[in-house]
Amino acid sequence: MVAALRAALGAPAGRVRLGIGDDAAVWSPAPGQLQVITVDECTEGIDFRRTTVSLEDAGWRALAASLSDAAAMGARPLLAVVSLVIPGDLDEGGVVLLYQGMAELAARHRVQIVGGDLSRGEVLSLGVTVVGEVRPSNLKRRGDGRAGDVLAVSGPLGLCRAGLAIVEGEVDRELLDPHLVERAVAAYRRPEPRVAAGRFLGGSRSVRGMMDLSDGLAADLPRLAAACGAAALIDADTLPVDPACRAVAQAMGAAPEDLALEGGDDLELLCTVQRRAFGYLAERVRARLGRPLLLVGRLEAGTGVVVSRGGVQHPLEVEGWEALRR
Amino acid sequence: MVAALRAALGAPAGRVRLGIGDDAAVWSPAPGQLQVITVDECTEGIDFRRTTVSLEDAGWRALAASLSDAAAMGARPLLAVVSLVIPGDLDEGGVVLLYQGMAELAARHRVQIVGGDLSRGEVLSLGVTVVGEVRPSNLKRRGDGRAGDVLAVSGPLGLCRAGLAIVEGEVDRELLDPHLVERAVAAYRRPEPRVAAGRFLGGSRSVRGMMDLSDGLAADLPRLAAACGAAALIDADTLPVDPACRAVAQAMGAAPEDLALEGGDDLELLCTVQRRAFGYLAERVRARLGRPLLLVGRLEAGTGVVVSRGGVQHPLEVEGWEALRR
Repeated sequence: MVAALRAALGAPAGRVRLGIGDDAAVWSPAPGQLQVITVDECTEGIDFRRTTVSLEDAGWRALAASLSDAAAMGARPLLAVVSLVIPGDLDEGGVVLLYQGMAELAARHRVQIVGGDLSRGEVLSLGVTVVGEVRPSNLKRRGDGRAGDVLAVSGPLGLCRAGLAIVEGEVDRELLDPHLVERAVAAYRRPEPRVAAGRFLGGSRSVRGMMDLSDGLAADLPRLAAACGAAALIDADTLPVDPACRAVAQAMGAAPEDLALEGGDDLELLCTVQRRAFGYLAERVRARLGRPLLLVGRLEAGTGVVVSRGGVQHPLEVEGWEALRR
Repeated sequence: MVAALRAALGAPAGRVRLGIGDDAAVWSPAPGQLQVITVDECTEGIDFRRTTVSLEDAGWRALAASLSDAAAMGARPLLAVVSLVIPGDLDEGGVVLLYQGMAELAARHRVQIVGGDLSRGEVLSLGVTVVGEVRPSNLKRRGDGRAGDVLAVSGPLGLCRAGLAIVEGEVDRELLDPHLVERAVAAYRRPEPRVAAGRFLGGSRSVRGMMDLSDGLAADLPRLAAACGAAALIDADTLPVDPACRAVAQAMGAAPEDLALEGGDDLELLCTVQRRAFGYLAERVRARLGRPLLLVGRLEAGTGVVVSRGGVQHPLEVEGWEALRR
């Protein structure tokens, strides 16, 4: 689809540096300046249900997805505009709650919501466009990784997927540690876009390619590998799986790594790092951001994604995240 | 609603010069630079029907609405990102047609469509965000008109409304001049955002307030008058009604002025002009753009909108445009 749209739109020209196909588009409003711009649509019944997240949470989640896209380019998000499709059962008070959830997240990142469009429709939907700035030397594209780089993520995987399983009743929450339940549900309802990590990793010369994991590693890693023109190898046995995801998977009788691989919404960043710089970079990330940078695999010459389990390698087979449509 | 959202979002700060409430938001990426950003949602069943416009036309119309908002600030539109909600009955070829319609209009105005988001949903919907640039001295806000200014529009009104009446079968097209039918239907399917006129009027110091007429004069003029803190007086007897609208109204047994007042989608610009400068400005617009600048009324001290008919004045009563929901 993306290839067909590229053909319909033509190649970026003039001040546009990057068109469709990455987490955000990039253009240069003036010499030495770069802006990123990205939009994400969050639709009831597909991306969330009002029975499992509040209206404030729905607003938060919609903005979070777009902030994460800006962060994945190494950019600092600045502004957002919102296109809201309002169904008949949502009154003005409900719309204000959506905006309050967005405003709460926006304030944490000093992002301003400056405008929008309100329209009526059958299904609640929030389209959030975010504009950010990035120093030209800090811009990261998903396709800039090279064979030989290691693959790393900005945090353990599967926490939001665990939260989804809990709120959707895929698992009996009575079987789980209440503390893990609380963490997972909170992360699902209010995922944290890794804005500070994105800017920090953007500023590191040892980081080459970067994208966010909004659709889960199983869906997003093949995109990164293809953009880099390389093969990705990941090790399921050492995959950094969040403890809540592990517990939920056990209670569901599923493999924790599979749940972590397919889980979307985590908004962790996936980056490729020069192999020899990884240890030092992970230490700096820990010191500066109080967060881990976790190895998940490496890029090699070739194509596709291979998963190693118990020393045996297989092509990636786990289906990627398709939100509530699975 | 806008007031409640303003309260939820807080006042614009820092580099943001104008938040919600105008045709576009305005911010300053660097000293001496201003950018505008605006989003518009175009939803099937509300803003268009696939039975009366082609997919290419639907794409064109969606982009046109956002380009018009940028033009109404005096800005030059540069970039667009598109959030597309794709229903099950629209295949990849159909999505490409939507993009081709957008790309055709974009090319006419040297606008680049740089990115977007594709999602599945029940109803086809296109959310188009446009970013533009404006010289700080050329920025026009809708609230900058003053009592004493005259009100002018960038072209005759009601042409798109006439086209809608024809494609919706509100009128028997056999009763109409085929040439008028063709013009009106073409204008409805592919409305022209007044990008060149917006930039020209933005550069004129005698133009004070400006907005576009996407919802029709009856809906938009009260907004402009309120933003200016003034009363608007318009003369229905001398209202510049497009001949096609006049013919359609006659065939429908309606008053042409009412159809022209309520008709949306025309995308003409409405501006307030210093009274003594109007004649000279209209001549310059004619000479430079080959287009008219047409008087519709004036701003005076007070509040509300008054329509004069046959010398008798009444408060505005014609309902504004609500697209297909009427």
